[in-house]
Amino acid sequence: MVIFRLGFGLFPIILRPLIKSVTEICVRYAETDKMSVVYHGNYFSWFEVGRVGLLNEVGIPYREIEKAGYQLPVLEAHAEFASPAEFDDHLTVETTIPEKPMARVRLNYAIHRGTTLIASGYTVHVFINERGAPVRPPKLFRDHINPCF
Amino acid sequence: MVIFRLGFGLFPIILRPLIKSVTEICVRYAETDKMSVVYHGNYFSWFEVGRVGLLNEVGIPYREIEKAGYQLPVLEAHAEFASPAEFDDHLTVETTIPEKPMARVRLNYAIHRGTTLIASGYTVHVFINERGAPVRPPKLFRDHINPCF
Amino acid sequence: MVIFRLGFGLFPIILRPLIKSVTEICVRYAETDKMSVVYHGNYFSWFEVGRVGLLNEVGIPYREIEKAGYQLPVLEAHAEFASPAEFDDHLTVETTIPEKPMARVRLNYAIHRGTTLIASGYTVHVFINERGAPVRPPKLFRDHINPCF
Amino acid sequence: MVIFRLGFGLFPIILRPLIKSVTEICVRYAETDKMSVVYHGNYFSWFEVGRVGLLNEVGIPYREIEKAGYQLPVLEAHAEFASPAEFDDHLTVETTIPEKPMARVRLNYAIHRGTTLIASGYTVHVFINERGAPVRPPKLFRDHINPCF
Repeated sequence: MVIFRLGFGLFPIILRPLIKSVTEICVRYAETDKMSVVYHGNYFSWFEVGRVGLLNEVGIPYREIEKAGYQLPVLEAHAEFASPAEFDDHLTVETTIPEKPMARVRLNYAIHRGTTLIASGYTVHVFINERGAPVRPPKLFRDHINPCF
Repeated sequence: MVIFRLGFGLFPIILRPLIKSVTEICVRYAETDKMSVVYHGNYFSWFEVGRVGLLNEVGIPYREIEKAGYQLPVLEAHAEFASPAEFDDHLTVETTIPEKPMARVRLNYAIHRGTTLIASGYTVHVFINERGAPVRPPKLFRDHINPCF
Repeated sequence: MVIFRLGFGLFPIILRPLIKSVTEICVRYAETDKMSVVYHGNYFSWFEVGRVGLLNEVGIPYREIEKAGYQLPVLEAHAEFASPAEFDDHLTVETTIPEKPMARVRLNYAIHRGTTLIASGYTVHVFINERGAPVRPPKLFRDHINPCF
Repeated sequence: MVIFRLGFGLFPIILRPLIKSVTEICVRYAETDKMSVVYHGNYFSWFEVGRVGLLNEVGIPYREIEKAGYQLPVLEAHAEFASPAEFDDHLTVETTIPEKPMARVRLNYAIHRGTTLIASGYTVHVFINERGAPVRPPKLFRDHINPCF
């Protein structure tokens, strides 16, 4: 989903699309731990679900990125846990690309149950080619993403 | 570890080595679920730990099997849960190859805490080559395993 | 979903509802392993998703079972892997209760990608009460399930 | 393990113990993904292994903390990935408590394969009591930890 946001430049005010996607998750029993809530490490799988959902929506499925010979490993991952998620909760994962991807690509995540914030976080990635060397985002990716910034 | 067992042939009684390995596990919090015990699906990772341990011990590390161009995917997996395992439990995974591997390779597992049986099960595998085609166990594997049967 | 099946009694032929549910899954990157397909242990989480979906559909959500003071741990789990599942595959988990639950409750699972069978299996469960003692299925469960057998 | 570090005060130079623990990990196949390296979310389970190891070493096993009616949920988790870990790698998880725990407890982690840094990160925790309310670290914990700061 591409929605529009207000540009930060003064003259003229430009509406630019904000890259944002909302994906739904239902908490699995396997994802809980003996505190009776979701194990913190599992949120990173949900961030992945959000990331994959966003890439699908903007027309560059991660599956296609890999077929084109690229991968997008994680350099950095961060999460803050605001309120515990429980088994069978229906959650939304809101994913955004907050800034124009350069050498690195950052995605932000916010997970809610209804209007309650459960967790937020981000991941930072770099594109690598088939030999594992870091490369700038491939054309396929830039063509879809850069017009939004 | 290769220990000897009594052969089943009538004359003469032959001592043949039984392929058996014991690996240790300490239960992680991540492996528990909200029943306060280990999630059943995680036992299959422990069976894997036992399997990898056995292959290391008989001198054919799984890593080497893959380097030689083979993989050993799982065709069948089975577990029976006798008693729950809890966080921080120290467990042993006893792994055996109960019969001479032919097209298929079967491994049996028994997990104990002290003398208490926690779970038992088995997996059935087939070797595949680099093109994904099923093949009979590679020479490397047969040379180490077959003398025990 | 409750659909009808032909009874096995001779006279008269009775149409009895078959307890069956179909749930959808999209394969996560986290669920793959270095064979580039889904790690076999993760299928048991999908069986759980199917099981939870079936219980929701017949009107006895697992969450309610736990609130009523019962749990339904796994005694036995089995899977056979017919064809590998890959990242981003859209799969269906078909779950059925094949026989009238007595002391034990069995569920069967079949996972497909389109018409391709990916995996099948079953789990066997027992109800336990708050003290962890095995009990027969609670009234809530029997009232919904038994009429179908 | 409690080792001594140099105090930062000028006069006099005081040797204070640094709370630090080193735990060993062997990478499981289940922990890899189709990039052929470890899935980033799994590092948080390893951080947990390091954390549990440190608490064992300083004499306050997490199991005992829970028995005393406390839990130590994660408020924040962060990881930076320096070099990929592969199946069957033998890694060390070095865990430290970098500052005197107050309302919040922070742990730092560094994961190495030999001398190669694989990943580093931290988690931030708070103690909660049986009613789920945040509390300051229990006496058991303070008595073991505070003398080191």
